[in-house]
Amino acid sequence: MNSAPQRQSIRDLSGRLDADQIGAEMHELIRALYPLCRSITGEGLRETLRIVGRTVPLELREVPTGTRAFDWVVPKEWNIKEAYIADRSGRRIIDFKNCNLHVLGYSAPIRARVSRRELLEHVYADPAHPDWIPYRNSYYKEQWAFCASEKQRAALTDEEYDVCIDSTLTDGSLSYGEARLPGESEREVLISTHACHPSLCNDNLSGIAVAALLAKHLRAIRTRYTYRFVFLPCTIGPIVWLSRNREAAARIDHGLVLACVGDAGQITYVRSRRDTAEIDRAMRHVLEQSGRPHEMRPFAPYGYDQRQYCSLGFNLPIGCLMRTPNDEYPEYHTSADNLDLMKPEALADSFATILSTLCVLEDNRRYVARVQHGEPHLGRRGLYHKAQEYGLFWLLNFSDGNHSVLDIAEKSGVPFEKLAIGAKLLQDVELLAPDETDAIR
Amino acid sequence: MNSAPQRQSIRDLSGRLDADQIGAEMHELIRALYPLCRSITGEGLRETLRIVGRTVPLELREVPTGTRAFDWVVPKEWNIKEAYIADRSGRRIIDFKNCNLHVLGYSAPIRARVSRRELLEHVYADPAHPDWIPYRNSYYKEQWAFCASEKQRAALTDEEYDVCIDSTLTDGSLSYGEARLPGESEREVLISTHACHPSLCNDNLSGIAVAALLAKHLRAIRTRYTYRFVFLPCTIGPIVWLSRNREAAARIDHGLVLACVGDAGQITYVRSRRDTAEIDRAMRHVLEQSGRPHEMRPFAPYGYDQRQYCSLGFNLPIGCLMRTPNDEYPEYHTSADNLDLMKPEALADSFATILSTLCVLEDNRRYVARVQHGEPHLGRRGLYHKAQEYGLFWLLNFSDGNHSVLDIAEKSGVPFEKLAIGAKLLQDVELLAPDETDAIR
Amino acid sequence: MNSAPQRQSIRDLSGRLDADQIGAEMHELIRALYPLCRSITGEGLRETLRIVGRTVPLELREVPTGTRAFDWVVPKEWNIKEAYIADRSGRRIIDFKNCNLHVLGYSAPIRARVSRRELLEHVYADPAHPDWIPYRNSYYKEQWAFCASEKQRAALTDEEYDVCIDSTLTDGSLSYGEARLPGESEREVLISTHACHPSLCNDNLSGIAVAALLAKHLRAIRTRYTYRFVFLPCTIGPIVWLSRNREAAARIDHGLVLACVGDAGQITYVRSRRDTAEIDRAMRHVLEQSGRPHEMRPFAPYGYDQRQYCSLGFNLPIGCLMRTPNDEYPEYHTSADNLDLMKPEALADSFATILSTLCVLEDNRRYVARVQHGEPHLGRRGLYHKAQEYGLFWLLNFSDGNHSVLDIAEKSGVPFEKLAIGAKLLQDVELLAPDETDAIR
Repeated sequence: MNSAPQRQSIRDLSGRLDADQIGAEMHELIRALYPLCRSITGEGLRETLRIVGRTVPLELREVPTGTRAFDWVVPKEWNIKEAYIADRSGRRIIDFKNCNLHVLGYSAPIRARVSRRELLEHVYADPAHPDWIPYRNSYYKEQWAFCASEKQRAALTDEEYDVCIDSTLTDGSLSYGEARLPGESEREVLISTHACHPSLCNDNLSGIAVAALLAKHLRAIRTRYTYRFVFLPCTIGPIVWLSRNREAAARIDHGLVLACVGDAGQITYVRSRRDTAEIDRAMRHVLEQSGRPHEMRPFAPYGYDQRQYCSLGFNLPIGCLMRTPNDEYPEYHTSADNLDLMKPEALADSFATILSTLCVLEDNRRYVARVQHGEPHLGRRGLYHKAQEYGLFWLLNFSDGNHSVLDIAEKSGVPFEKLAIGAKLLQDVELLAPDETDAIR
Repeated sequence: MNSAPQRQSIRDLSGRLDADQIGAEMHELIRALYPLCRSITGEGLRETLRIVGRTVPLELREVPTGTRAFDWVVPKEWNIKEAYIADRSGRRIIDFKNCNLHVLGYSAPIRARVSRRELLEHVYADPAHPDWIPYRNSYYKEQWAFCASEKQRAALTDEEYDVCIDSTLTDGSLSYGEARLPGESEREVLISTHACHPSLCNDNLSGIAVAALLAKHLRAIRTRYTYRFVFLPCTIGPIVWLSRNREAAARIDHGLVLACVGDAGQITYVRSRRDTAEIDRAMRHVLEQSGRPHEMRPFAPYGYDQRQYCSLGFNLPIGCLMRTPNDEYPEYHTSADNLDLMKPEALADSFATILSTLCVLEDNRRYVARVQHGEPHLGRRGLYHKAQEYGLFWLLNFSDGNHSVLDIAEKSGVPFEKLAIGAKLLQDVELLAPDETDAIR
Repeated sequence: MNSAPQRQSIRDLSGRLDADQIGAEMHELIRALYPLCRSITGEGLRETLRIVGRTVPLELREVPTGTRAFDWVVPKEWNIKEAYIADRSGRRIIDFKNCNLHVLGYSAPIRARVSRRELLEHVYADPAHPDWIPYRNSYYKEQWAFCASEKQRAALTDEEYDVCIDSTLTDGSLSYGEARLPGESEREVLISTHACHPSLCNDNLSGIAVAALLAKHLRAIRTRYTYRFVFLPCTIGPIVWLSRNREAAARIDHGLVLACVGDAGQITYVRSRRDTAEIDRAMRHVLEQSGRPHEMRPFAPYGYDQRQYCSLGFNLPIGCLMRTPNDEYPEYHTSADNLDLMKPEALADSFATILSTLCVLEDNRRYVARVQHGEPHLGRRGLYHKAQEYGLFWLLNFSDGNHSVLDIAEKSGVPFEKLAIGAKLLQDVELLAPDETDAIR
C-alpha cells in the first residue's frame, strides 16, 4: 500500500467504457492494418506490430531464421515487392497490387514466360465462389503460385503469359510483439492473437484489434493479475514464444486466444484442454448471464493457437474466443473476409465479453465466513434487505475457504458481479475475510 | 436383550396405522392450537407447547432474554392482552379479539389518538387480496402496527382514531419444547418444526401437528435410532437450540424440518446442504416409489430452519419436507391460511411419507454375503421362487459391506421395503450377515 | 520373436472374412447340433462338445457327480433313451422321438399306467401358444413330467394312459469343453457360452456356433491376448469352471457371454458389473460406430452366466452379448425357437461385431508422444494431409501414457480403427512410442 492515488479497478473500467467509441476505434485499427501483406515472417508482419504499437507499446522480438523451437525451426524470412500475370502485350491481368491475396503466401520467386497450361497449374481459384480470391499459403514446401477468382482464372485464355513473383526467401528473422502489463501478482493472464494473415479481416485483424484495445485499457488501470499480450504468427509463433518463455508459461493462470471476433455471428468459446479451468468457467458464467445465444465447445486439437498452448507438455488453461469459427462462414480465407464483414458493435461485444470475464478472474477469491454456526444476524448490521440481491446468505453459507465466489455463483445462479459486491458488503461488516491460503490474493 | 416382550418396530407401526384416524387427530390438534397468538417468545408459544404436551410429553425449556447464542441474543419476551382501532364513538373497527393477525407480531405497545394519516402509516394491508389480513412481524426493529384487509383499511375514513396495543416487551425468556425418544443407538434423528406463528394453519400448525403425532407413535415402539422432536420459534429457536446442544447435534445422523405439510398440494422436499445425505436419498426413494407427483429441490440458504442446521459450521444432514412451499400459495402469511386449507388426508399423507422414510433409515444397513463366489444355491434353501420379488440376487451380488440396502434399492429399482424383507430371508438362511463395521447396528 | 513367418493379426482377419460364408458355416453347425438332447450333464452335452470339436479342437473336462464347487455340488448325470405317452392301444400320442422338448429336462424315470387326471398333472403346456411345446426342466427337485403343445394336451381325453420315461440319474460327471488359444501375453479374454439346452436354436445353439467359429479363426492368427473359449452347462457350469480355475480367472482381462445371437433382432449388450470395463467401452464404441440400432443395458444379477463371472467374489470384466434377450421374444424356451429363427446374416453380424470388439481390445494401448511441447511438425514428415482422417493431432495431444487409444476414440469421436492406423503412422516416424508401463504390450 503506498500513498499514490489508487488507479481504477477493472470493474470501474468495465462500468465506464463507451461501446460505440471502442467499436469505432477497433474498426479504425483494422482499416489501417488491412492493406498490409503479412505472412509468418517479413516486413508486413513487422509493420503490423509497429502500427499496433501506437495503440499499446509493444516490445518487438526478432528470432533468427534457423533457430530451433521444440520440433520446429524458424523458417526463412519472406518478403515481396510485386507480382503479376501479364499477357504478351504486357497488360497485367492479375496484379498483387490490387490484392495481396493474389500471391500464394510464402511463394517462391519466379519470373518466366509460361504456357497457359503450365500457368493454370499454378493458379488457385474456388469455383464455388467465382468472384472471390481464395487465400492460400505454402510455408513449408517451396513452390510458386497465384490465387485468383474463378472468373479471372477462366479468363486466362491466351496461349502464353509472363509471370513475375518478385519475392525473396532469405535468412532473416521471425517477428512478434508483446506487451506485459504488471499487476499486483506475478501470476499471468495471457491474451494471444495471430498476426500473420494478409488482407483478411475477421481472421484475424479482428483479433489483433480487440487485443490491442484491451491492452491499451488494462494498461491504464490496476489489476490483480499481470497481463501479457502477444501478437505473433500462428503455429510457429506460439511454439517459438513457448520455447523462449518456459518460466513465464508456468506463471500463466488463465488465457485466451482471440480470432474471428469481428463478424456479426454469436460468440463461440472453445474450452481449454482442462475443460473446467477457471477461464472456462468464468467464460461460461459470463456468456450464460448475458442471456444471449452463444456456443461452448470442448477442446479439440484443431483451430487456432490454443493447440500449442494446450499441447500435452504445457496444457495451459487457455481457451479460444471467436464469433463465427474459422471454416464456418463462407468468406473465411477469401477476399470476401474484408472490411464489410467487420461490425463495430460485434467488435465491441467481443471486447465487453472478454472484459466481463476478466472481471470475474480479477475478483474471484475464496472467503472464510466469520460466523459459521447459524446465520449471522444481518438485521442488526443493516444488511437484511440486501441479502437477496447480493446473495449474502449464499456467500455466508458456502464461504468455507473451499468455495470461490465463482463456485458460489455457479451453485446459486446469482450473477458473479452481484456476489462480488455482496462479498465486499460482508467484508465491510467483518462477516467475511479473504482466505489466507488463497494462492493469489 | 432383556426378556421383556419386544415392542413393535417402525415397520409394524407403518403397517397398522389408520390414515383417516391419524388425519382426524392432527386436524383436531390444529383446531385446538389455531386461536392462540404465538410469537417467538411469550405465553402464546408456551401455551402451544403445553397443548402439544398432551399428545406427546415435552420438556419445556426457557432461555432468558439476553442469553447469547452464536451471533444472536435472545430478545425480550412479548405478550399482548388486547389491541384495537376504535373510532371517536368508541366503536372498535379493527380488533385483535377477532383475529390475532390484526397486530404486527412483536408490536411495541401504544395507546394514543392519531390522525387518519398517521394511522394509515401503521396499517399494513394487501391490495392484491382485499379480503385477507396479511401477517407481518417486526422482531428486531421496535415499532407498532396493525394489519388489516384492504377493505378494512379503505374504510378508515374518519379524521381521527383511538389506537391501543396493550402489549409488553420485557425481560423474560424464549420457550421451546423437546421430546427425546431413546432408541437402541444414541445416534439421533431430529424432527424440527417452528411454533411461533399465530393463527396460520399451514405455516405452521400443520408441521406441529404432524411432528406431535409422529412423536406420539414413535414413543410407543422400539427404534434403532433415538428420535428427538423440537418445537421452537423459527431462526432464533434452532440457533438457541444448536448453541446449547453442540454434543447432541454431533449425534444427529438424519433430520427433517417440517413446515406447510397440511395443504392439498403435492409434496416438496428440499435436500440437505450435503445434497446426497442418507435422508435425502431415503426421501427420494420413498417419493419415487410412491408413484405420485412430487418435487425434489436442492438446498438453498433460504426457507425454513434447515438454514441454521445446514449452516457452514454444522452442515447437518437435515432436509425440509413441505407440501406447497412458503410463498408459493396465495394464502401464505395471510388470514386465508386457515382451517379450510387443512386437509386431513394431506396431513395423513405427509405423516405416512415421513414414516416410510424413517422405515428406510431404520432398516438401512450394510450386509456381507456369506457366499461371494458364484451365486449361492437358493433352490435347496427354498428361496428360489422368492428371489425376484425380494431382490435376493441383487442383495447377494452387492452385499460387499460397502453397499447399503438403500444403495441396492437405488441400483436395482427394487423397493427398499422388499429388499429389507429379502435381507431378513437371506439372514435366516445365513447367506447374509450384518456388516460388523456398520457404525450403527 | 522367432524367424517363422508372421501370422495374420486380428485386423487382417477382420478385413478378409466373408460374412456369407461364415454365416452359412454357423448355420450348418446349428443344424448338426439341433437334434441332440442336451442337459446340464449327460451324453447329449458330451456329443455336442465332440461335434463342436470338429470346428475347433476342445479339451473335454469331466467333473464327477458330488464334486463341491463353492456353494454347489455337481449333480447326477442324466441320460435318456426314450419317453412317450401311449394310449391303451399302444399308440404313442406324445413321443420324445419327435421332439426332445417333450420330456421335462432332467426328468426322473417312470413307467406306469396312470389315470388321465394324474397324467395331466405331469404334462406342461402353454395355452398362450397352443401349437408350441414349452421347454421345462427340474434340475434340483426330482420329478417326472412331459411337455406338450396345448393342443396335444387337450387331446388327452382317454381315461388311462401308459407313460414311459426311460431316463437314468446316476453318479457320473458334468462335462464341459474348453479351447485355450495362447497369445503373446498370458492375460486372457474369455468367451463363454452355455451348451445345455436341448433342441432350442437361439438359446443357445447360436451362441455355440458363434463361439466355435470365432475360436476356429482366432486359432489361425497371432493375437496379443490369450483367448479361452468355454462351452458349458449354464449356472453350474461356470461355477464349476471358476472353482477349478481361480488362477486363470485372475488372468481374465475381458470377456463375453454369448447367448441368443442368431435371431433377426438388433444387438443387445449387457455391460459387466464394473459398468465401464474396457470390454464395455470397446463394445459401446463398436456398436456406436456401426451406426445401427442397438441397446446397451447395465449389469443386473439376472440373465446368463455373467451372473457367476460377475459374482461379488470375482467381479470379472465380462459382459453379455445377445440379439433379442431371453424372455423378450415369444419363441423363447419353446419348440418355436427352431432353425427358422436362425438367420445366417444375423449370426454373421454377431460374429463381426465381436470380432470388431476384439480388434479394439487387441490394439488398445497407451502411447507416449515423443514431442509434447507444441505440436510436432507433421508437414516435414509427410503426414500433415493424413492428420484429419487418422486423428493424428488427437493422438499426439492425448498420448501422455494415461490415455489409451480407446480413451482418445471416445474423446475425439474418431473411429478406433482410424486411430489405430494413425498410431502406427506416428510410431513409424517415431512421434509415438508404446507406454513402457502398459501392463500388457
